[in-house]
Amino acid sequence: MIFNDTYFMKMAFREAEIALEKDEIPVGAVVVLNNMVIGRGHNLTQTLQDVTAHAEMQAITAATNHIGAKYLNDCTLYVTLEPCVMCAGAIGWAQLGKLVYGATDPKKGFSLIKHNILHPKTLVTGGIMEEECSQILTEFFNKKRK
Amino acid sequence: MIFNDTYFMKMAFREAEIALEKDEIPVGAVVVLNNMVIGRGHNLTQTLQDVTAHAEMQAITAATNHIGAKYLNDCTLYVTLEPCVMCAGAIGWAQLGKLVYGATDPKKGFSLIKHNILHPKTLVTGGIMEEECSQILTEFFNKKRK
Repeated sequence: MIFNDTYFMKMAFREAEIALEKDEIPVGAVVVLNNMVIGRGHNLTQTLQDVTAHAEMQAITAATNHIGAKYLNDCTLYVTLEPCVMCAGAIGWAQLGKLVYGATDPKKGFSLIKHNILHPKTLVTGGIMEEECSQILTEFFNKKRK
Repeated sequence: MIFNDTYFMKMAFREAEIALEKDEIPVGAVVVLNNMVIGRGHNLTQTLQDVTAHAEMQAITAATNHIGAKYLNDCTLYVTLEPCVMCAGAIGWAQLGKLVYGATDPKKGFSLIKHNILHPKTLVTGGIMEEECSQILTEFFNKKRK
């Protein structure tokens, strides 16, 4: 088994598919420590009627619950869509070691903000499985508009 | 009874005091609709070992649970400390009608960011009960440093 970014992004993508099955905007996330998933989440804003229920927030909360500590310096967060400012703020507070995202979000992505919201030591990689991560969202919104 | 910003900030301050009793960084928040508190929260990041457990996040989640809808356009969020970027992002998503905060946060406050994170229609007032809201934090940190 090769544990690379694509391997774990596929797990995040599976979470996005679960969101889609619930008619939620399909975004998924996992938190990985030592090649093990210790937290997962998918967007549940409609189900919970809660704007804070983004995939990343749930995955971070699950991961910190799992390890019993609030910092995730040795962990990587994989998320199918570039985090928004709220989630980037949470990623900053949790001091994630690495952030890997799939599709970019030109409207709400945190990279629109000049100020560095993340922890200064957090490594960032974008564009992993970008096409699939973007396509599942495009198809969702196209279907909604019909 | 006069329902003004100070009246509701006192309620948020009471939440901060509850946080203090739990040895949490003393920040409190309430969400108000038609002069009624429909959500409240205080910082629980230590208790829950969860960086997302800020007072505002809990108050927003409680308020949206209460009304069964995820937007809070007609509501005001009172919080004893200027929200961080994560919480400002959540306030933006929830489209709060008004944000009122007590003490400013020169290190982590959202106003450090040039980009407007809040919803364009959200009104903002700062400095309500600023002295008390600031003092409870200063005393907490001074005690921790001893």
